Amino acid sequence: MTTEEQIRESLEDVLVPGSMRSLIKLNLVRNIAFSDGTVDVAIASAALSPASQEWIKAKATNIIKGLPDINSVRIDFVDTVPKELNEVKNIIAIMSGKGGVGKSLVTSLIGISLARRSYEVGILDADITGPSIPRMFGISGYPAGSESGILPPLSHLGIEIMSINLLLPNEDDAVIWRGPLIGKAITQFWEDVLWGKLDYLLVDLPPGTADAPLTVMQSLPLSGVVVVFSPQELAAMVVRKAMQMAKQMQVPIIGVVENMSYFTVPGSRKRIEIFGKSKAQEMAKSANAPLLGQIPIDPELAQFCDDGIIERYDSEELSTFAEAFLKAVANKSE
Amino acid sequence: MTTEEQIRESLEDVLVPGSMRSLIKLNLVRNIAFSDGTVDVAIASAALSPASQEWIKAKATNIIKGLPDINSVRIDFVDTVPKELNEVKNIIAIMSGKGGVGKSLVTSLIGISLARRSYEVGILDADITGPSIPRMFGISGYPAGSESGILPPLSHLGIEIMSINLLLPNEDDAVIWRGPLIGKAITQFWEDVLWGKLDYLLVDLPPGTADAPLTVMQSLPLSGVVVVFSPQELAAMVVRKAMQMAKQMQVPIIGVVENMSYFTVPGSRKRIEIFGKSKAQEMAKSANAPLLGQIPIDPELAQFCDDGIIERYDSEELSTFAEAFLKAVANKSE
Repeated sequence: MTTEEQIRESLEDVLVPGSMRSLIKLNLVRNIAFSDGTVDVAIASAALSPASQEWIKAKATNIIKGLPDINSVRIDFVDTVPKELNEVKNIIAIMSGKGGVGKSLVTSLIGISLARRSYEVGILDADITGPSIPRMFGISGYPAGSESGILPPLSHLGIEIMSINLLLPNEDDAVIWRGPLIGKAITQFWEDVLWGKLDYLLVDLPPGTADAPLTVMQSLPLSGVVVVFSPQELAAMVVRKAMQMAKQMQVPIIGVVENMSYFTVPGSRKRIEIFGKSKAQEMAKSANAPLLGQIPIDPELAQFCDDGIIERYDSEELSTFAEAFLKAVANKSE
Repeated sequence: MTTEEQIRESLEDVLVPGSMRSLIKLNLVRNIAFSDGTVDVAIASAALSPASQEWIKAKATNIIKGLPDINSVRIDFVDTVPKELNEVKNIIAIMSGKGGVGKSLVTSLIGISLARRSYEVGILDADITGPSIPRMFGISGYPAGSESGILPPLSHLGIEIMSINLLLPNEDDAVIWRGPLIGKAITQFWEDVLWGKLDYLLVDLPPGTADAPLTVMQSLPLSGVVVVFSPQELAAMVVRKAMQMAKQMQVPIIGVVENMSYFTVPGSRKRIEIFGKSKAQEMAKSANAPLLGQIPIDPELAQFCDDGIIERYDSEELSTFAEAFLKAVANKSE
């Protein structure tokens, strides 16, 4: 005798066109009723074009009919907005206040480490005027979806990605907007994008403590922030402003990450602290949060980012960093 | 027989309290009338406290009385706002779109090179949420002034400097403002600060193409912008957005500067392109503007910035860069 649970499981095989994630992972299955051989499935229509709905209906009907004891299948679409379908366990913003210290790099490295550990991950690029994420992952092209929502494209590792650069005709195009429009774009990236079920949504913040970080901290249900800094005291000063902002907004700091910690001269084991002595311990202390990692300057990694193949990067340090991140999140959630 | 010109020259010796620039350089002398041994001087009261006015009156009277054939001196103060007194030959914004590529560094290096060549220079730090300039110049302390205006503090080399960080009780304090407030702060740094007569006002822009650069491009009479980039393609992409913005706002690009071009391994002459192959020629071409310089990664310079002694820095490359900058400005003005 087929159970509702089995029907639900079978729908894991129905991949949503334009997303490649399943109906279940995108949280589109709203209800399953099964009695006397008749199955009724209610599916949210959010972000699904009429053609996609047709296709899903046919595919789901087919699959369910393949289960034992099923006589008839009825698929209905119900109107729901993406915001109501998004179920994210941890929303974590990566911030620094200072530009160019490697927020996007850290966001991406956390993302790929988690995806490799089979977590469901999304990256929301909240840097509207200087978005880097699509380029690092080699993703371009207008996202699929419908009037009722946007489907974030998937990276090779299956990370959902949304960025303003995917919506621009040309990646060099400038977005010359004042704060309210930028805030609106970020809010839409949360409310109108069908992220579905995720373990982690990572939010890559732009520099500063103005509109974009404010909007993220006020409109998204953040679990916390990861603070990125570089060893230069000048950068650290600006980063301390961001930490103060998080404190004032009562968003917990999950951990801190030092980027550009040192440079290893090629062909030798000599480490040079190009941007000065490490500030790792000092920053962790002033954040009252653990140091999650120290990332060296690595020309190969920079090249991977430029070439859109950051997902090929791996190292022992990255594993250690990922474990520290997961531990820190677990500690904060307790 | 004393001339009005001589009287004006003598007032070069009257330094405004809290500024250390003269009445003449701050453009506070509005009118000088001289007949029958009687001198009438009208001085703008902008940014002058009552005590400063008293002191200036006494000092100016004394100095003028020391000139030949003067029987009596009358000093009157007239109400004028700083905006009407600011006479700047070239207002040039340093922008990049991308954070952390070295806008503040380039701004400071241009500033000190020009000051060494005896130009009158000011730096307006338009990065309200991540200001770096005061730290690099080792300047702190609330600026002098009055209800009618702010007097920018002077650096060792005599550069006028205005930054939000001078107004904060603690340099780590976060400015958590939305765009309109940030725009207002920038406008005030132009309209309410008594810059006086300057050859160059350099505006250090924050990253992005949102409120702050928009406000600067719309409210300040810019001669042009200098665009800073780093060799990483990711950064270059974001910088191209900024160049597009300048084009759309019809602000000429005076030149481009590559920062973090290469790193010379200490104790050897080996140059390593840590952030990838130089993009200098390519960026100059796409900006249709000259390449003004390529600045290496220099741990010593980073240390100078952290220690607030950037004005001690000098190098042959910096001279070449300054000459290229002056030439490019001259070419644009023709």
